[in-house]
Amino acid sequence: MLRIGMIGLGNMGSAHADTLARGEVEGGVLAAVCDADAAKLDRARERYGDRVKRYADAEEMMASGEIDGVVIATPHYDHPTLAIRAFARGLHVLVEKPAGVYTKQVREMNEAAAKAGTVFAIMYNQRTNPLYRKLRDLVESGELGEIRRTNWIITDWYRPQSYYDSGTWRATWEGEGGGVLINQCPHQLDLWHWTTLMKPKRLRAFCHFGKYRNIEVEDEVTAYVEYENGGTGVFIATTAEAPGTNRFEVTGTRGKVVIEDGKMSFRRLRVSEPEFNATCRGLFDKPECWKVEVPVEPGGGPQHKGILQNWTDAALKGTPLLAPGEDGIHGLMLSNAMLLSTWTDDWVEFPIDEDRFLRELEARIAESRRRREQGVKA
Amino acid sequence: MLRIGMIGLGNMGSAHADTLARGEVEGGVLAAVCDADAAKLDRARERYGDRVKRYADAEEMMASGEIDGVVIATPHYDHPTLAIRAFARGLHVLVEKPAGVYTKQVREMNEAAAKAGTVFAIMYNQRTNPLYRKLRDLVESGELGEIRRTNWIITDWYRPQSYYDSGTWRATWEGEGGGVLINQCPHQLDLWHWTTLMKPKRLRAFCHFGKYRNIEVEDEVTAYVEYENGGTGVFIATTAEAPGTNRFEVTGTRGKVVIEDGKMSFRRLRVSEPEFNATCRGLFDKPECWKVEVPVEPGGGPQHKGILQNWTDAALKGTPLLAPGEDGIHGLMLSNAMLLSTWTDDWVEFPIDEDRFLRELEARIAESRRRREQGVKA
Repeated sequence: MLRIGMIGLGNMGSAHADTLARGEVEGGVLAAVCDADAAKLDRARERYGDRVKRYADAEEMMASGEIDGVVIATPHYDHPTLAIRAFARGLHVLVEKPAGVYTKQVREMNEAAAKAGTVFAIMYNQRTNPLYRKLRDLVESGELGEIRRTNWIITDWYRPQSYYDSGTWRATWEGEGGGVLINQCPHQLDLWHWTTLMKPKRLRAFCHFGKYRNIEVEDEVTAYVEYENGGTGVFIATTAEAPGTNRFEVTGTRGKVVIEDGKMSFRRLRVSEPEFNATCRGLFDKPECWKVEVPVEPGGGPQHKGILQNWTDAALKGTPLLAPGEDGIHGLMLSNAMLLSTWTDDWVEFPIDEDRFLRELEARIAESRRRREQGVKA
Repeated sequence: MLRIGMIGLGNMGSAHADTLARGEVEGGVLAAVCDADAAKLDRARERYGDRVKRYADAEEMMASGEIDGVVIATPHYDHPTLAIRAFARGLHVLVEKPAGVYTKQVREMNEAAAKAGTVFAIMYNQRTNPLYRKLRDLVESGELGEIRRTNWIITDWYRPQSYYDSGTWRATWEGEGGGVLINQCPHQLDLWHWTTLMKPKRLRAFCHFGKYRNIEVEDEVTAYVEYENGGTGVFIATTAEAPGTNRFEVTGTRGKVVIEDGKMSFRRLRVSEPEFNATCRGLFDKPECWKVEVPVEPGGGPQHKGILQNWTDAALKGTPLLAPGEDGIHGLMLSNAMLLSTWTDDWVEFPIDEDRFLRELEARIAESRRRREQGVKA
């Protein structure tokens, strides 16, 4: 049995606590919850009764001896800080996405995890989606050949101004540390590399800040990446488009997969493109291409519950993790790189210059609207 | 009756001559053909008989008094030169795409056309395609609202190495002046702006030269453009991908059009996005979106024959041109800008620095493989 403490009872934390309280995670028990907001703790008592301990302070909960692991569902900036403290106490950790706001703090979190040796996972629930699992399977097994081009248009994260106006921390450098990249796109940024196994070499991005919404962070992004193997990729995101697009295309030397509207299309070459090219004699010949129907389990998969279960199983039975916490840094580095490339109007090489990114971010935090509105001295 | 002289009897020139000889263009008559290759002239006599005059020299044909207009279907570099000579003789001109290889020469051609006052058209046959005409109609009439984002993935111009090996001029700086942009993509580069009415402000592109084929010019391109109205666009092309993609997405404040696989999908917002955004109160609300079935004439339209007919009608009856020759510079400038941005690893502003582009191109021509192979002194 894994006794779980929930840190943060916002939208996601409450949902995860509910899942645990309903007994939907085998072996996982909601043992305690923690939030600085007394009203949220009152609501927790109403929902979960006195059996679930309540804490206003995370440190106190972690020191209580009542829990074996924590789920961290606080604002982004606090994810690494809290995780590091949990690791110091030998607790298992499941952190909500994003892993953090800048890779420097996430690297420290990963180091703390390695030192602790406890089970560390991240809530990349889209990794349970059969569509993306199948794509990764096709890539990993070589069915797509060597990947040459990726393209994700993810513009269906529509958010009206009223969304941004609902919290002074929203879409500010101080409160969130970014916009569509840090808040809406962590799943796609993770899946982009997780499904394709592609390693970025350098990136050039074009972010627009407060273009379509009255916010200080990015609400439109176009990024171009060059991978270590010479392949290229494009990533396009915005929160201001309706109806948006969610279309992920991956082309390899053996064919092409497109995931769009919850469906996968797979076209496969009979012989690989380089092989065809090497032997072809006609001027306008093309490789024979098959339209393949790949069986993909219907539905979106177990999602959040699946990650909670997998993390619990990993802690109790050593089950391999679907979303190791250490993986969080990859998507975040892409996100940081896109901002840095825009700020410097230049290429960003991988791994990124973490100190430089942090300096640039801190300069923006110092000027952040939220700071100004709250009268905080920069 | 318009007496037409065909300059160049390669693939396209022969096809156009055949169309005219079959009497498929009302009012248009194939009066003469011209090619430096005697074998091609022999073949022309077999096909068209002695009624159609044959010339080895374009100047001679243009001076013969036997023709009222010329169709120019020679290698790219010669398009403007020949057109300028035709205009000097008061002839009507229909030029094959691309308009030329660099905008400086095309600008001179456009100036000569203006001075001549004859009818000048370009073989942008895809402008007769009902799908793209409908898209332009939707944009022009305001049905899509203000355009915010365009995205064209045009990677289905598959060309094997054998294609490139079929002529020493192919895919060389000296012979063609470019690769997928100048040879395969002129139609898409034209339609990209013609259908959307968008004016590029600046562009950043990433071309790869001889990446997947043994050629010296570009065989993969990713370009990002920022438009004058603040919108953005992406253009992706390669000749090395199978199965390729041909998907054109245009998003405006009133909806989204996607043209793919010869079909148009149109989704339209009940109220425009900015209007919805200004009045929306919910955090996760989205504008109501309708799936609209727009009637689009089936088939690809009259294509080359349609442009031949339209040019003939314009010369004989003053019919407005579907593809004015002067328009050729726009797509070419996009293509030149993409190369220049890659060569300089920097932004390119519109209008581009034509002299700089030409200098850069000439440096590559001087080093061109074709030059070297033919022993031409650089």
